[in-house]
Amino acid sequence: MNMSAASERLVVIGGDAAGMSAASQARRLKGPEALEIVAFERGHFTSYSACGIPYWVGGDVEERDELIARTPEEHRARGIDLRMRTEVTEIDVAGQRVRARDVDSGAESWTSYDKLVIATGARPIRPEMPGADAPGVHGVQTLDDGQALLDTLARTRGRRAVVVGAGYIGVEMAEALINRGYEVTVVNRGSEPMSTLDADMGRLVHEAMEGLGITMVNDATVTKVLTGEDGRVRAVATEDAEYPADVVVLGIGVRPETSLAKAAGLPVGRHDGLLTDLAQRVRGHENIWAGGDCVEVLDLVSGQERHIALGTHANKHGQVIGANVGGGYATFPGVVGTAVSKVCDLEIARTGLREKDARRAGLQYEAVTIESTSRAGYYPGASLMTVKMLAERRTGRLLGVQIVGREGAGKRVDIAAVALTAGMTVEQMTALDLGYAPPFSPVWDPVLVAARKAASKLRAA
Amino acid sequence: MNMSAASERLVVIGGDAAGMSAASQARRLKGPEALEIVAFERGHFTSYSACGIPYWVGGDVEERDELIARTPEEHRARGIDLRMRTEVTEIDVAGQRVRARDVDSGAESWTSYDKLVIATGARPIRPEMPGADAPGVHGVQTLDDGQALLDTLARTRGRRAVVVGAGYIGVEMAEALINRGYEVTVVNRGSEPMSTLDADMGRLVHEAMEGLGITMVNDATVTKVLTGEDGRVRAVATEDAEYPADVVVLGIGVRPETSLAKAAGLPVGRHDGLLTDLAQRVRGHENIWAGGDCVEVLDLVSGQERHIALGTHANKHGQVIGANVGGGYATFPGVVGTAVSKVCDLEIARTGLREKDARRAGLQYEAVTIESTSRAGYYPGASLMTVKMLAERRTGRLLGVQIVGREGAGKRVDIAAVALTAGMTVEQMTALDLGYAPPFSPVWDPVLVAARKAASKLRAA
Repeated sequence: MNMSAASERLVVIGGDAAGMSAASQARRLKGPEALEIVAFERGHFTSYSACGIPYWVGGDVEERDELIARTPEEHRARGIDLRMRTEVTEIDVAGQRVRARDVDSGAESWTSYDKLVIATGARPIRPEMPGADAPGVHGVQTLDDGQALLDTLARTRGRRAVVVGAGYIGVEMAEALINRGYEVTVVNRGSEPMSTLDADMGRLVHEAMEGLGITMVNDATVTKVLTGEDGRVRAVATEDAEYPADVVVLGIGVRPETSLAKAAGLPVGRHDGLLTDLAQRVRGHENIWAGGDCVEVLDLVSGQERHIALGTHANKHGQVIGANVGGGYATFPGVVGTAVSKVCDLEIARTGLREKDARRAGLQYEAVTIESTSRAGYYPGASLMTVKMLAERRTGRLLGVQIVGREGAGKRVDIAAVALTAGMTVEQMTALDLGYAPPFSPVWDPVLVAARKAASKLRAA
Repeated sequence: MNMSAASERLVVIGGDAAGMSAASQARRLKGPEALEIVAFERGHFTSYSACGIPYWVGGDVEERDELIARTPEEHRARGIDLRMRTEVTEIDVAGQRVRARDVDSGAESWTSYDKLVIATGARPIRPEMPGADAPGVHGVQTLDDGQALLDTLARTRGRRAVVVGAGYIGVEMAEALINRGYEVTVVNRGSEPMSTLDADMGRLVHEAMEGLGITMVNDATVTKVLTGEDGRVRAVATEDAEYPADVVVLGIGVRPETSLAKAAGLPVGRHDGLLTDLAQRVRGHENIWAGGDCVEVLDLVSGQERHIALGTHANKHGQVIGANVGGGYATFPGVVGTAVSKVCDLEIARTGLREKDARRAGLQYEAVTIESTSRAGYYPGASLMTVKMLAERRTGRLLGVQIVGREGAGKRVDIAAVALTAGMTVEQMTALDLGYAPPFSPVWDPVLVAARKAASKLRAA
């Protein structure tokens, strides 16, 4: 393949979901004679599912490589000049070039670009406290992190685990460690786990986690990690108490990895993520695109920018960028903030705005909460679920839905996600023609029950 | 309760989902002093789930009474003058009265009304052929039918069952009889089972049913039921063959029960169902409402009227009628034709138009079919599903979705049902923010994969 013959060069920084989706999609649209594609990845892996790490650690997924959607070799076979273990250290916007360093040899060189894609992802928030780097304390951001944690679990005799943080990663890691036979304590700064839900819904998660044998410590900030004589972790300390720990998992969340972009003068928003237009082009820059965990996304419900690190957005960004870079046209209009997760058999879902989001966005609303079942009440396996729904006063527009339940609860949030995207009112939702048969739903789907109650409350208001 | 003091009287014909929902909702809005409610039901039961009968016959639901949402006594306790085993035999529209006959005594009397609700439901299509009434041949429309079938199953020593018809009721009854240990043959007039799907998707149901040990006979019309010397069914005959049968279940579908309404001169459509306005008022009649299986509904995708016998519509109609009769306001805007069903672990769903519906409605379209998985491919329990999607040429509007798969396939159709209701294009759907986590979905939900393929095909067309 004569890459030097290409009429233009695309450089991609970051070899995971957004970057490699963009590269692959651009390659589908333009062959090597028209577009040279150079991609830099500082780690050992490309295109893997970080979201799958908790299930690998928990044993549901046996092999690390199952999480890898496409290997470096596969990307290269598709005509992408992929440079692994090569870290981009500088973007020279005016000069249209990037400086990259071979991680192993330290050798540096400049590569010029006609078009640039920034997909540098996110970095985990590591608490600044004594002992945070002690052996036995693990993040779960990368495949290397996952392997290190598994190595620790294999070596450690004690069975006490402390998870710091009770968001998605925290609760998923709690499940993983329960599945590995650990006594699990989750230490959470908030008043209830899953702060992506309102506290009344988080309370349901709390109760279910305790039902699973997980010890939930709320309103507690970890102040230090205590180590033993061997230097390994032995406990986690909060202001009020100590929690013995043979292993500690940090699941506090992530921030956009935008140091490189900021150093190059590219615009970031109040969450420190790159700001783009609807075509995922970095604002003010004709030939630079960005996507995935390093950008902010438009929340279509609140009209405000958010940072959401989620593989499904990263993949969509990559497709959109690839189409635009490859001479096509596509946009990413924004998100409504949908997320699903589970802790053992408890399913947790949300979309749209929580009460505090609605207030912050200046919206007045009514909130209702209902209980219903996943199937017709008489059908085997019917389980309770709780649905909370917010709707705007005056307009009646759906603002958000939160669901906590068992099998069949989580993906019901998609009904609300589509309704939010379409700007439906809760009154309109009461007439939705959703799938009904006794093994699948009560005659009124739980989402419809919530919509009816919300519509009724709005009429009475 | 002094009902004679009420300022007006509502008469309801039919004590099942639509009629009793209407009565209950009207009662919630108006007390007995303002509205007298008289309801007539010719059978033994009120407000039961006919959709649940296959699961009761199959043993998933143990007791008949679990299918009864509200008993006559419960309705009466709410101030509804419910007259069981009383059949309305005539509607006198000009005189604003109905004639009713006590089924047991034969006594007849007239009851006047200010407002009338017709909720006479549907009647099963019984093939006109020799032997159709022989002992051992059963419909499954009512609780009495279900009990009669269960009695036959308990008495019959042979284990060969023939199900006539391969629509929802047919395939659900096939499952029920498999669960009861029968050898099941399904005789189907169409080229594939589930004619509510396109034949290419019906083919997948066919294959799965055979995998479950069900013998599927397509393109075959039952010509007669053969009986033995004892007068009981012994086989089912088609033009080409005979299928030995110890029990026969008729699951051919239903038609609106509108003989009473037609005799009274009320308007019916081309499916023989009553025609109503959006408030469920019978067209041209200020004080008569109708809902449930006896009416036609507006298909919002094709703009044409259809007859769909489904409990979820009947309940919605009842709510709407009750609100309007009770002095409130509500409408039933129409359906998009969503339906879900299952045969053992096979889930079957559809919404919107099939190819032939689209052609009949004068729509030009592109159709795509994709295979994907219910969860991330690496996550335990991920199972294949096939999604077929139709989109209109030029506008790109979603026209319909059909899904055949295992766990997690059926209710995914709700995503498309909401998108259809909102008039979304498949291009818009590619950006939908659906719930993603490895236990719930691949990073691109199967519905999004189909939308991407449809959008791409439309762009290329």
